Amino acid sequence: MIKEQQELGIGVDVGGTSVKLAVVRGSQLVYREEPISTPRYETPEKLIGEIVVRLRSMQVKYPAVRAVGLGLPGFVDHEKGVVDSLTNVPGWHGVPVCAMVQQACGLTTVADNDANCMAYAEWKLGAGRGMRDLVCLTLGTGVGAGVIANGQMVRGHVGAAGELGQVCIDYRGRIGHYGNRGAVEDYIGNNELMREAKMYYAASADSREKTSEITPITLENEAKKGCKVAAGLWEDTAVKLAACMLSCYYILNPQAFIIGGGIARAGELLFAPLRRQLKAQIYPPHFEKLQLLPAQLGNEAGIVGAAALALNSLDRS
Amino acid sequence: MIKEQQELGIGVDVGGTSVKLAVVRGSQLVYREEPISTPRYETPEKLIGEIVVRLRSMQVKYPAVRAVGLGLPGFVDHEKGVVDSLTNVPGWHGVPVCAMVQQACGLTTVADNDANCMAYAEWKLGAGRGMRDLVCLTLGTGVGAGVIANGQMVRGHVGAAGELGQVCIDYRGRIGHYGNRGAVEDYIGNNELMREAKMYYAASADSREKTSEITPITLENEAKKGCKVAAGLWEDTAVKLAACMLSCYYILNPQAFIIGGGIARAGELLFAPLRRQLKAQIYPPHFEKLQLLPAQLGNEAGIVGAAALALNSLDRS
Repeated sequence: MIKEQQELGIGVDVGGTSVKLAVVRGSQLVYREEPISTPRYETPEKLIGEIVVRLRSMQVKYPAVRAVGLGLPGFVDHEKGVVDSLTNVPGWHGVPVCAMVQQACGLTTVADNDANCMAYAEWKLGAGRGMRDLVCLTLGTGVGAGVIANGQMVRGHVGAAGELGQVCIDYRGRIGHYGNRGAVEDYIGNNELMREAKMYYAASADSREKTSEITPITLENEAKKGCKVAAGLWEDTAVKLAACMLSCYYILNPQAFIIGGGIARAGELLFAPLRRQLKAQIYPPHFEKLQLLPAQLGNEAGIVGAAALALNSLDRS
Repeated sequence: MIKEQQELGIGVDVGGTSVKLAVVRGSQLVYREEPISTPRYETPEKLIGEIVVRLRSMQVKYPAVRAVGLGLPGFVDHEKGVVDSLTNVPGWHGVPVCAMVQQACGLTTVADNDANCMAYAEWKLGAGRGMRDLVCLTLGTGVGAGVIANGQMVRGHVGAAGELGQVCIDYRGRIGHYGNRGAVEDYIGNNELMREAKMYYAASADSREKTSEITPITLENEAKKGCKVAAGLWEDTAVKLAACMLSCYYILNPQAFIIGGGIARAGELLFAPLRRQLKAQIYPPHFEKLQLLPAQLGNEAGIVGAAALALNSLDRS
């Protein structure tokens, strides 16, 4: 815990659009590097090369930095430090990213799935501090999660644990990304929410939103202004998300669900119906002991968690 | 591992109908005590009193016995050795069963949920030996499971993990035991399978089974004889069970699912369509690394696992 809270690490959040880098102490970003535009680098080698350039410059500015953590959107073999595949970033198959960065910078480097980094941050430094069993969800275009059980991150046999977006909420449902039916992500992601919103607004007589652009933010504002279509969509999202969370609850029996990401910013619009759904569907003495918490570290959780994971790994080496 | 395989323990399997007791070495039942009829003892105290009488007599016969493990059908606080509530056995709320037995017999006593005991047995001595991440299901009247992640049993915050029967396979589905919708147990348990069988047979023109009694065994025999109604029911069971297992897979990414219990005795009738369903719905490189295995220890897994858990606990004391 001491290392994660006091020492300096670098967190790197690799995304399909940009790579964000920062020097981190505890949950604070001490220095933000200018982001890298991901699509400008065609191969993993070139992108890693640019990341290394930035890391070296950050090392010069902050010589006390002790470790680098990389959060990546895909399947990452955390133990070996190898990326198996990334979502929306082509060409990453079997890339030994940790060895490459470590060799170039001389800093201990770890890598993990980005949702795991976020969960680690919320667990060690955010809403889940001191808990032994928790699930941390991030709701955006997709649904990601990190799982902590018995006080340890659960990464699974091939590093694919925590794929809560793929949890089945309808065994006869739509066929999704892996050929799997009824994946919750296909029902409540940003895109799906917007699709449903357009459909309902088109059919609704009492709405002024028919033609204007719909985003999660307009949907949030409309619901707060009393628009029944918008409020109904949040309610519907809660029903579907609750189904996924219930499955997760009955399998893992966590102490808390921590929820972050774009959609979660709707706050009580989502949390109130979600709490109602969970309350109605969990044995009451157990529901009393379950916490439903908003994430505390916001957009920076991925970077903070990556750095914390890296600093934590120093204890073991 | 040595203790679990070589020393003598007593396993006790508490059920709504009977309590089974045996002296166990490894996965072998060295001596079986006459079962106790559960409903004959009206209170937990009286039933525990009779269990103690039997344990003492077993201690006289096998003085080398070193520990007692109790498997119970309900919510058990394993760490405290207290039963919170049992399914189909009234009156068990906050019963400190381990302290009561230990005081009366002088033997180290541990208690756990019966599905956890079965999972522990399969993990340490059965189909899951040497694995770090696995899920062990038992399919009977209900659906139970034990979860092992990172080489540890996952019991959760209040000892309610592994309730796979409650996993939601339809967010708009039937309302089940805890008010929860679409619990897989309400779709594939023994009773449900029989209900569906009767319905389909009643509507089927080409069947001779309309009036005779239907059981999982007749359904198995009919399917093997080529009855399309029966084969279709196994197929349908596999689709629904697969939905639950997929959710579990995407959350935990286990190395193996181990499947036991009455319904699992149908063997390839169930396993073949189940394997097909999982293969179609998991990313192929990951499916290749997933094992689907029948349980090895049969009906005795609960007793074997309870004894093994108890012997294992000696290492820690």
